[in-house]
Amino acid sequence: MADFAGIAKQFVDHYYSTFDTNRQNLGGLYRDGSMLTFQSSPHLGVNSIVEKLVSLPFQKVKHAITALEAQPTSTSGIVILVTGQLAVDDEQNPLGYSQFFHLVQDPAGGWFVQNDIFTLAM
Amino acid sequence: MADFAGIAKQFVDHYYSTFDTNRQNLGGLYRDGSMLTFQSSPHLGVNSIVEKLVSLPFQKVKHAITALEAQPTSTSGIVILVTGQLAVDDEQNPLGYSQFFHLVQDPAGGWFVQNDIFTLAM
Repeated sequence: MADFAGIAKQFVDHYYSTFDTNRQNLGGLYRDGSMLTFQSSPHLGVNSIVEKLVSLPFQKVKHAITALEAQPTSTSGIVILVTGQLAVDDEQNPLGYSQFFHLVQDPAGGWFVQNDIFTLAM
Repeated sequence: MADFAGIAKQFVDHYYSTFDTNRQNLGGLYRDGSMLTFQSSPHLGVNSIVEKLVSLPFQKVKHAITALEAQPTSTSGIVILVTGQLAVDDEQNPLGYSQFFHLVQDPAGGWFVQNDIFTLAM
């Protein structure tokens, strides 16, 4: 496997900077078979996933990563666990969260998100 | 895919009850190609993983799950994100944690842990 840690870091930076500026554009990172579980709400495929992300009830959002760990899988994918803090709108107190990504290589080049699980810390 | 959510729940319950009673016995859940990243410390294979888990500097430990989400993968595996609280020894304040598992079917039957990432919440 190539530099999975570098690819993971680059992906996560790109993901959250896109999320925090224009989350409509996250659609390019998913495919029709992609799965998102967002706070227990399951979504399958680009359209359902983007619809969910765009409908989240905040205008401003800012992610700050506290830990990022990655491993290669036995089928040439990359699994990533992120923990971080999320500040929305004018809330003073950021929320802790955990997010898992499973990246798979696109035959056409690059990587896409096959699995995505987001959970706010309690 | 069979009942991935049920398998995930059953696995996680078994994993933490074993961890909290005799973590030496967790070895049976890993294989030689299994990977554990424990607080940024990487371990490959059953022996290295069990050695790490057994060497953790506490006598008593108790996991309490606050959220468990699972998805099937495109290669018949199961990915699981757990968030929870961890109480060690006689510490009054439990620690928040996130843990990711990637379960793969064993040709001999059952499931094993291909990827495992553990991170304490900051």
